[in-house]
Amino acid sequence: MKTLRRLVLPVTLLACAGTLAAEVKPVLVIHGGAGVVRAEMTSEVERDVKAALTRAIEAGRSELEAGKPALDAVTKAIVVLEDDPNFNAARGAVFTHDGRNELDASIMDGAAQRAGAVAGVTTVRNPITLARAIMERSKHVMMVGSGAEAFAKTVGITLVDPAYFHTERRWQQLQKTLAEEKAGAALSDYETSRHFGTVGAVALDRTGKLAAGTSTGGMNNKRHGRVGDSPIIGAGTWADERCAVSATGWGEFYIRTAAAHSICTRHALLKEPIAKAAVEVINNQIPRLGGDGGAIALDRDGNIAMPFNTDGMFRAWLDRNGAVHVAIYADESAGTP
Amino acid sequence: MKTLRRLVLPVTLLACAGTLAAEVKPVLVIHGGAGVVRAEMTSEVERDVKAALTRAIEAGRSELEAGKPALDAVTKAIVVLEDDPNFNAARGAVFTHDGRNELDASIMDGAAQRAGAVAGVTTVRNPITLARAIMERSKHVMMVGSGAEAFAKTVGITLVDPAYFHTERRWQQLQKTLAEEKAGAALSDYETSRHFGTVGAVALDRTGKLAAGTSTGGMNNKRHGRVGDSPIIGAGTWADERCAVSATGWGEFYIRTAAAHSICTRHALLKEPIAKAAVEVINNQIPRLGGDGGAIALDRDGNIAMPFNTDGMFRAWLDRNGAVHVAIYADESAGTP
Repeated sequence: MKTLRRLVLPVTLLACAGTLAAEVKPVLVIHGGAGVVRAEMTSEVERDVKAALTRAIEAGRSELEAGKPALDAVTKAIVVLEDDPNFNAARGAVFTHDGRNELDASIMDGAAQRAGAVAGVTTVRNPITLARAIMERSKHVMMVGSGAEAFAKTVGITLVDPAYFHTERRWQQLQKTLAEEKAGAALSDYETSRHFGTVGAVALDRTGKLAAGTSTGGMNNKRHGRVGDSPIIGAGTWADERCAVSATGWGEFYIRTAAAHSICTRHALLKEPIAKAAVEVINNQIPRLGGDGGAIALDRDGNIAMPFNTDGMFRAWLDRNGAVHVAIYADESAGTP
Repeated sequence: MKTLRRLVLPVTLLACAGTLAAEVKPVLVIHGGAGVVRAEMTSEVERDVKAALTRAIEAGRSELEAGKPALDAVTKAIVVLEDDPNFNAARGAVFTHDGRNELDASIMDGAAQRAGAVAGVTTVRNPITLARAIMERSKHVMMVGSGAEAFAKTVGITLVDPAYFHTERRWQQLQKTLAEEKAGAALSDYETSRHFGTVGAVALDRTGKLAAGTSTGGMNNKRHGRVGDSPIIGAGTWADERCAVSATGWGEFYIRTAAAHSICTRHALLKEPIAKAAVEVINNQIPRLGGDGGAIALDRDGNIAMPFNTDGMFRAWLDRNGAVHVAIYADESAGTP
């Protein structure tokens, strides 16, 4: 009996140490916005969106499976969504009230608590790559407007003509909203349709490190110069050692609740499971103030939360077992793509 | 005996109810920045700064004693500091690398968790009043650059020629920094002197409501378009039902720690006294990442915290007993002005 106990203990310890040091299963969660209006969806759009979400997950998954940092998976996944006109980020961005595409993005590296953010740029093809360059290659965390674009040039970020961001669907969306606004349409419909489509990602890599990123064209019909939560570290994006969040919703309310930081802080300080912390902020605190939307959250054990209080949230995730899931609506059972 | 008890109880209850409902003693705390370099100070500057801090406290105190909301006290106190060339906010703002004055500010109303923020404006005489107008008179929380200035015009905010913000002292400061940078001066001195002088205020009014505000010219020699923590709700400014914070320091680190929100969240979720929560974030977490600075914090019971880890922080406060104090250095006993 004594011999057995002596043998068993070291083996168990060894197994545990192995798990902690090298066997973290990578996890990736992405969203393509929480402003889904079910009545406006077609099966064609659903199919295209699911295909794009799958491509984005696969792009991030390749990084994670190659042992690359969470930051790379987040960047790669978001670039796929930024390049796809189905989402309100970069190509596909909504228009401002005066007919421009103003782009915002932010990224955060959880382990080092480093961050980068950009707001109000009009010529940067992939704003998430500029946010990352600001984090890694400048002394600053946040840059806006033409100053951010001047920095982008110095570090070789791809710039495009603003016309690149012009899509007919978004242009018609602005025209419709302007007409409704003029006609004094009910505010509720109008507001709901406005914050459609921000994209974001959170990832856990093999070394157990977390990252988060978010990119958006903001609100349809927004006033020139308005900044929402997406480029605000702590509101739209947060990552630390324990937790990573990317939010999507009516940005003003996400700033007023410091939504992403609030979720991670409840998880860290109150030891709330990530799902409970995310639901408290997204489905209780924000609606109490009058806002709506969703978020994706991930903890360092690979637990995922994806709460939202709109018709649907475009989302996909690579779970701890290597399976990929894609979903849009709340009542939808999460199927493999 | 029975009669006595019946008499005494209601009177006690009445007194308690009175205390809770109407007898909150107003408190106001202001700062004029934590980047004080003792070796560079003169008794003349100290005298001028203390006089300005006293004027700002008196301006806010008048509001509070007239029964006005904390928001009014914060606004009035900050306007005095913005108009004074001794502080790095509005008139007296530092210059960007390319010789401009770019101004940022934010304000938050604790009870309603409403907020307003503005970044990168160059023609707004009192950016704190624009932040407040964005909160109260727009649907947005944050606006930047020319879009913010266009909104300012529509609500009658006072605009000035950018030359109004040009002060000879700040111009020489930029020239000195540019020369040092060229000569490759030691980074530590250079960085320390850069984030001199943000202003801010936190207040508790007679109804027990809190507010916080911050205004800045940012970092001397900052790159055009850089945004620090001052206009970031959650980083430079935060107020909720329980706690109000205005931060001043090396902004990048305050964003990376969501400093103001972190202080209030530790106070709310961990029930840490405001002093302990403020010291943990300002003097432990931020220096651990390599940053420095200070903050002022106030809870709804009127407890004050003013931690900093630089030579000094320009500060003044109206305490619960109606006494006004002004101080600059850490070792300085807080005297009445």
